[in-house]
Amino acid sequence: MARRIELGDFRHGTELLKRGFAKMQEGGVVMDVVTPEQAHIAEDAGAVSVMALERVPADIRSSGGVARMSHPSLVREIIETTSIPVMAKARIGHDEEARVLESLGVDMIDESEVLTPADPFFHIAKNDFTIPFVCGCTSLGEAVRRIAEGAAMIRTKGEAGTGNVVSAVKHARLLETEIETVVSADNEAREEMVKIIMNGYQRLERFSEISAKIKKTPFGSIDDLRNSVASALEEIGNLGRLPVVTFSAGGIATPADAALMMSHGMDGIFVGSGIFKSSDPKVTAEAIVLSTLHFEDPAIVAEASEMIGEAMPGLEMDSLEVRLDERGW
Amino acid sequence: MARRIELGDFRHGTELLKRGFAKMQEGGVVMDVVTPEQAHIAEDAGAVSVMALERVPADIRSSGGVARMSHPSLVREIIETTSIPVMAKARIGHDEEARVLESLGVDMIDESEVLTPADPFFHIAKNDFTIPFVCGCTSLGEAVRRIAEGAAMIRTKGEAGTGNVVSAVKHARLLETEIETVVSADNEAREEMVKIIMNGYQRLERFSEISAKIKKTPFGSIDDLRNSVASALEEIGNLGRLPVVTFSAGGIATPADAALMMSHGMDGIFVGSGIFKSSDPKVTAEAIVLSTLHFEDPAIVAEASEMIGEAMPGLEMDSLEVRLDERGW
Repeated sequence: MARRIELGDFRHGTELLKRGFAKMQEGGVVMDVVTPEQAHIAEDAGAVSVMALERVPADIRSSGGVARMSHPSLVREIIETTSIPVMAKARIGHDEEARVLESLGVDMIDESEVLTPADPFFHIAKNDFTIPFVCGCTSLGEAVRRIAEGAAMIRTKGEAGTGNVVSAVKHARLLETEIETVVSADNEAREEMVKIIMNGYQRLERFSEISAKIKKTPFGSIDDLRNSVASALEEIGNLGRLPVVTFSAGGIATPADAALMMSHGMDGIFVGSGIFKSSDPKVTAEAIVLSTLHFEDPAIVAEASEMIGEAMPGLEMDSLEVRLDERGW
Repeated sequence: MARRIELGDFRHGTELLKRGFAKMQEGGVVMDVVTPEQAHIAEDAGAVSVMALERVPADIRSSGGVARMSHPSLVREIIETTSIPVMAKARIGHDEEARVLESLGVDMIDESEVLTPADPFFHIAKNDFTIPFVCGCTSLGEAVRRIAEGAAMIRTKGEAGTGNVVSAVKHARLLETEIETVVSADNEAREEMVKIIMNGYQRLERFSEISAKIKKTPFGSIDDLRNSVASALEEIGNLGRLPVVTFSAGGIATPADAALMMSHGMDGIFVGSGIFKSSDPKVTAEAIVLSTLHFEDPAIVAEASEMIGEAMPGLEMDSLEVRLDERGW
């Protein structure tokens, strides 16, 4: 993902505007906040955006049950008290939560696997919205499906709420390798990839039975969707990277973790539980912004690592009851 | 491993320097320490190096969760208060933790399975660093992969934090037997071994599908990596031992344990929890140094065994929830 993406090469109109907003986040840190006070801490520390939510992923994970869009009052309070952009999470496939968030005036919607999915078949038809969306991915196929559906920004899923960076690294490596494969593929191989990516929509057995008869999707006809997928794949082949800003998320807990993900070619960082589950959130927030900006300078990353107190306690992958990264695909 | 390794026979430049540092540790004991006071005790007892970390493996094991690089302040304090070399641990595949430790001025990095791995596919590209690395192994293939990646020192993994020497013996025996096989192998058999060792990089199912298409790794192209593996194997065949200093680690808790591992041909000993989880760490440290130096003299090993009070309480392999030796491969 090292090559910078030039806006306007391929896309026009609303899509250009949405991707443009996402591009303004580049090189920065988006922080989960659950109160206006936390939003202030994030803003003061230099976050490019805040993600307004009721509970950070670590708490969603430990409390279990159905996780939904945050209460509008909370979202509104956070919007009113910060001057940086505000993102908020909608459930996968829950168009109405997205409409509500849009009408509240948030700047970007995260259609997020951290919340409980609302649609087992489809994600939100993001092209039907004026507001830009960010979506998670574990691999290239998933990223392409989300881009074809209108996502203006992609983040790797990692494994949210664990403070364990291993899944973020895994997804970054898979994305990178698979992009290389697209770049070196000929037309025939790319046709094959389009087929594989389209099959991703049929992962549920039930759906694959039905889909033989389906002529339309929330994203237009099957042919429209296939064309969008083919077009996204072509852009990727030409650019050698995703055509949208690509952040790392899920398990980043230390300044060194943030720098690691930037060195993997990511365009920026989402930190969820890592900041407000650490012993000194204000300092951790500043340290993670510092190391993200200066990830190429080990002395600064060392300084940032030294600033913080205790990082959030983490979770081993084997110990997890719920794998959020397996939600949506 | 009885035959002494002569530096400079095969390697040059930085690699020679890195392996040279490791060689200075030969015949000695490296001790885990979690405070500057412990570092003093280790130094006074005759440790060749200290491993600076926040928690010894027994405590990492019992507290669970994600174990990360130690806090830079602790590492710095220990560096400042000891005159012997200081090692510190980075997570497997966490280049940034290694960069931070290098910039703090540690003398050697242990890319260690005692911490939670950060990369499910690859270890750190150790040849990209000026600082030498030590890595763990359970068998020859694993040792060769780590040497091909630039490790300047190998330690068996054993099973850290258990005070149970059985895994350290297992790994030493496997290494010895497999080295004998390499020595007696003809060219065709060695080609086959290179293939098997390269397959070790593809243990994750998903990755092995992809890796068929992979042209590059953090260690250069697949061909570069294969050449490094073949070259390390050739050195092993010629030397009749690993081309780098080879220590025993993981479960060594008594002077007799240390002497046992030296008699298995190991070049030296890492003691983690064994010293500061014993009833009288100062005396245990001295006794283990004594028996490591004089492992060939049972009277001195008996004397050392008599010096100590209670050894650390140990754990049976069957009772373990987490097997650290299965991390990284």
